[in-house]
Amino acid sequence: MPSITINDVGPRDGLQNQQKILSPEKRVQLIKALLDAGMDHVEVGAFVSPKAVPAMAGADQVLAGLPESGEAVFTVLVPNFRGYELARDAGAKSVSTVLYGSEGMAQANVKMGREQADQVTADILDQARQDGIRVTATIAVAFECPFDGPVAPSIVEELVGKFMTLGADEVAIADTIGAANPRQVRALTESLVAEHGPVKLSCHFHDTRAMGLANVFAAVESGVRKFDASIGGLGGCPFAPGASGNVATEDVVMMLQQMEFDTGIDLNGLMQASALARDLTGTAPGGRSKAWLERYLAKQINE
Amino acid sequence: MPSITINDVGPRDGLQNQQKILSPEKRVQLIKALLDAGMDHVEVGAFVSPKAVPAMAGADQVLAGLPESGEAVFTVLVPNFRGYELARDAGAKSVSTVLYGSEGMAQANVKMGREQADQVTADILDQARQDGIRVTATIAVAFECPFDGPVAPSIVEELVGKFMTLGADEVAIADTIGAANPRQVRALTESLVAEHGPVKLSCHFHDTRAMGLANVFAAVESGVRKFDASIGGLGGCPFAPGASGNVATEDVVMMLQQMEFDTGIDLNGLMQASALARDLTGTAPGGRSKAWLERYLAKQINE
Repeated sequence: MPSITINDVGPRDGLQNQQKILSPEKRVQLIKALLDAGMDHVEVGAFVSPKAVPAMAGADQVLAGLPESGEAVFTVLVPNFRGYELARDAGAKSVSTVLYGSEGMAQANVKMGREQADQVTADILDQARQDGIRVTATIAVAFECPFDGPVAPSIVEELVGKFMTLGADEVAIADTIGAANPRQVRALTESLVAEHGPVKLSCHFHDTRAMGLANVFAAVESGVRKFDASIGGLGGCPFAPGASGNVATEDVVMMLQQMEFDTGIDLNGLMQASALARDLTGTAPGGRSKAWLERYLAKQINE
Repeated sequence: MPSITINDVGPRDGLQNQQKILSPEKRVQLIKALLDAGMDHVEVGAFVSPKAVPAMAGADQVLAGLPESGEAVFTVLVPNFRGYELARDAGAKSVSTVLYGSEGMAQANVKMGREQADQVTADILDQARQDGIRVTATIAVAFECPFDGPVAPSIVEELVGKFMTLGADEVAIADTIGAANPRQVRALTESLVAEHGPVKLSCHFHDTRAMGLANVFAAVESGVRKFDASIGGLGGCPFAPGASGNVATEDVVMMLQQMEFDTGIDLNGLMQASALARDLTGTAPGGRSKAWLERYLAKQINE
């Protein structure tokens, strides 16, 4: 069975948009539940200003509280070089930086121009190579920006090419506001896989318009084999009007398993992690397939 | 812009599974709301035993109450030859018959074997040609049966071939219980389109496992250009344990419009029809993209 990797971004992209702020201990509890379900890629926090994003305060404590990782890849988001240094000094082995498909989003998110944001990632890449730290370059609003409208595929193709050349370990194509449709996703990812192969590419979808699973399938058709998802559908982006939750991890894993891909993830464990996310936040809605999945898993236990 | 046809099955597949039984007048009201939204294919009822399916009683009154159809195709489901005769005598110009991917479902649904059900459709096709009536042959449980398990694609391919040859105007591939995944859908529909072309094929998906839109996209990728959907996500099948609603018409139209297909359907009108479905039944949940779609349409009106 071909395998597909899922990176749970709930503890970062998910939690940063919740009203309720979770302590580092609670966030570690959620991350451990994901590991218990067999997940081995988790975005565990962000080294951002605690004033701007209070939910991510204490990311260093989260890193310190993680279990011995073994094979697991724990990633933290860093918005700038200072964030990178803080992350490195706190022991991070994998960071995610942000590139932008639009000027409007770059300004709203980090008060920089697009090219300035490119340079931040280039500088981090340079330093990270010396520090032996893994870097994912994430292209935010890769399809549409809430401020500037549609993003031309050529902009994304250029960014991917540039940062593959600069040595990014992974380039993530992010539909930050959940505006992409599967036809667009299929076309863009097909072109990117043809140019760069699938190994260093990943996709990140939100489910705002209910097209999250369709978009995952579209990218799978193109050969993409790594996806972000968020436990319980937690998520959104505090700086992007109209964005709602990431596509739920349990929905993605369910669909991939049924398509006979190996994710290494246990759905029962995932449902426990999803229940924990709901208990901790009061807002994680659960996956869209929840009603069916609960019946399905209960039957499996009885059989 | 290439066009895709949507056949709203809410007034039949949707309503037959509701606790609340709607009068023929109320059903006509719902159908008119769909026409007002620009829909021109609607499954308006079924000529089945009113004891077995009380919600479909008075299908003749529904047909009599419909507006002058113009270009619209109003279809009624007929489970057997007697049902066909009743439909014809009530003025139906288009009927849908049911074939089965499994023995278990044929027995549960019509207390016949699969081959006997085939013969019913063959007999109806024969008569309908003389009567000048359009026939859709719908293959129920084309992917998985709740009683017999997975259905081999070869069974479906054989049924499609047989009934294309016998002169069906359309063959519909129905995932009656919402068990199909998009990889299966892509493979089966690709094979069917390669063999028969897309013109007489359609697909019918339920959204039980939240893969409804992904499955629609998968079939679109294969070239399918006609889909069933149900206003407000109404639906299910009373004889299929675990089945939940059809994929919602508003979700499908929204996605297809965003993929730049022409459906001829107005989303504002569709949302009004969906609200009416909810008011009439108390249970139509609305599409999965409802929260976003309402904001999107409100903005369009303001701009």
